[in-house]
Amino acid sequence: MKQIVVINTGGTFSSLTTEHGLAPGLSAEELKSKVGKMDPNIMLIMEDYCSLDSSNISPEDWCNLAWKVDGLLGRCDGIVIVHGTDTMAYTASMLSFMLQGIPIPVVLTGSQVSADAVMSDAMNNFKCAVSMAASGIGGVYVAFSHNIMLGCRASKVRTISFNAFESINYPNVGTVDAFGMHLNKSYAPPRKKYSPSIQYSNKIAVLNLFPGMKSDILSFLLKEGYEGVFIEGFGLGGVPFINSNLMAEIKKAASHGLPVLVGSQCRYEGSNLEIYEVGIRVLESGGIPVHDMTREAVVTKLMWCLGQTKDIKEVRSYFEKNLVQEVTLHGSVKKFVSLEENDSFLVRITI
Amino acid sequence: MKQIVVINTGGTFSSLTTEHGLAPGLSAEELKSKVGKMDPNIMLIMEDYCSLDSSNISPEDWCNLAWKVDGLLGRCDGIVIVHGTDTMAYTASMLSFMLQGIPIPVVLTGSQVSADAVMSDAMNNFKCAVSMAASGIGGVYVAFSHNIMLGCRASKVRTISFNAFESINYPNVGTVDAFGMHLNKSYAPPRKKYSPSIQYSNKIAVLNLFPGMKSDILSFLLKEGYEGVFIEGFGLGGVPFINSNLMAEIKKAASHGLPVLVGSQCRYEGSNLEIYEVGIRVLESGGIPVHDMTREAVVTKLMWCLGQTKDIKEVRSYFEKNLVQEVTLHGSVKKFVSLEENDSFLVRITI
Repeated sequence: MKQIVVINTGGTFSSLTTEHGLAPGLSAEELKSKVGKMDPNIMLIMEDYCSLDSSNISPEDWCNLAWKVDGLLGRCDGIVIVHGTDTMAYTASMLSFMLQGIPIPVVLTGSQVSADAVMSDAMNNFKCAVSMAASGIGGVYVAFSHNIMLGCRASKVRTISFNAFESINYPNVGTVDAFGMHLNKSYAPPRKKYSPSIQYSNKIAVLNLFPGMKSDILSFLLKEGYEGVFIEGFGLGGVPFINSNLMAEIKKAASHGLPVLVGSQCRYEGSNLEIYEVGIRVLESGGIPVHDMTREAVVTKLMWCLGQTKDIKEVRSYFEKNLVQEVTLHGSVKKFVSLEENDSFLVRITI
Repeated sequence: MKQIVVINTGGTFSSLTTEHGLAPGLSAEELKSKVGKMDPNIMLIMEDYCSLDSSNISPEDWCNLAWKVDGLLGRCDGIVIVHGTDTMAYTASMLSFMLQGIPIPVVLTGSQVSADAVMSDAMNNFKCAVSMAASGIGGVYVAFSHNIMLGCRASKVRTISFNAFESINYPNVGTVDAFGMHLNKSYAPPRKKYSPSIQYSNKIAVLNLFPGMKSDILSFLLKEGYEGVFIEGFGLGGVPFINSNLMAEIKKAASHGLPVLVGSQCRYEGSNLEIYEVGIRVLESGGIPVHDMTREAVVTKLMWCLGQTKDIKEVRSYFEKNLVQEVTLHGSVKKFVSLEENDSFLVRITI
């Protein structure tokens, strides 16, 4: 008998109609009654953490959840976190960094339609999450619309469709079909010692570049003691250097010890600052490349790094390392790892 | 004989290897020599405007291009603008607003690989753009990887693949295959009088929301006389109201006459602030919804609006109107208009 702890945080999954619109309301036990048939070899232990729309989940909640997971080690086989979809990718990414080397699966899931609704995707997503949580493969994952993704690669790309999440620039860890859960053979969780590190700083800003963007915001951030900035540049990570002070402001910020990360605002295939002049000058100005990381992973890795160190060199050094498969540092950004039959193995679960 | 004016602005299309990395260099006439076989019924008139990586294209360039297009009316059948891909969607969106009701086609195109390279996509994209420019259908378009998209719906979503652009939340206007160019029958350019309006303001900011985001940036923007803000919220457009001052700052900004637009950071399917409490409270705080517009269209529409008026009520009123098919205001955000045979008509072009 596998013991899976389910931590309920709220989200659409547990929402009910209120006078202010849809808002979370169902408790963990109430959710359990909605889930229906489960694998008889799995025992669910339901726990309530909070009942929040995930737009209201804060970095403090990330820490509390991380400590909660840490405290459950040795007392269960896996953990499912029921979470709103809106910021699930942020929570999953941050837990990936905070709980590096976690020896059991921690699987976040949610739904696009409330578990209380007729056409809800909650039950399917929940059952996929439970299956992954029972797999014994340590790491932080997102289970959604029959796909299992690495937590630090998942991103919400659709606001209405059931397949709301995608694994960005990295293959799915697994998929679920009528035969069971197929896990990608080429996926191996990083072999590292479990070393939880549950600090962060939220003194960061994200600037989404657009033509004509004024550069005084960077001066403001520097003056106000911000500790890190992420600029979502154009295309492969380009930043203007003609008719714009932005490149000079990046140089100034970097020289004052403010880490300035630069990536792409394009959703897929990541950035590469070494190809065009508009990228090379970013590197020369002291910008730190984020390669093919998701926005959610960049934001949470930066917040997590700044919980470990305030030194720009050390922050840079963290971004030069692939900690939990969140980044493709070398060679092509595009890795085509398909889930052909020979590349996956079947995990028997109760369908 | 159709006369198509080609305006070269640079970009990867015209790039050459330099000591600083790839940078634009080929002139319009040099590009012409690389294009190869063209439809004998089309005459190309090549013009150079600038030779810039599009990360360096500024709002002033948008105005200059708009005036240039305006000056060519009555003197050609259509216009192709060769443009870098990085900010092409911004330029296309802004030209859509500046040149509302333009009676001839203005088609932007570019490439992922330089026209000078063996495996370049430049020629194909260029020929598709020329075909659309010769179609006689007024409007601003993007032609890329055999697709014709509305300029105000196009977005660069991939940084490496040849199919870099997608039409977001709106069907392609047309596609090109071995039979020719198929234009979507259900697409009809808005019937409006041509009324160029070539002013803008760049005193705006884009804030990409993340959990824990500090709200003091909004106060800074208000204090510094910014004229508009676009917040990319969570999921359907959620903004936190617990453990965060952000909602209060939105209310304060709006009450001081600063338009605060709120949308989604998810790439597809747009925002809807009327479903969840975290959205409804945005509306109650004075946030202006942007529905299913692309980030590029929101930014340029806001810049363009602020060129027409500084009054928050009038800005709101612009965002309650669908000016050039940039937004789906009513009903479902998802419009499935397929390009089945019966829904399209074939335009004979030289293949």
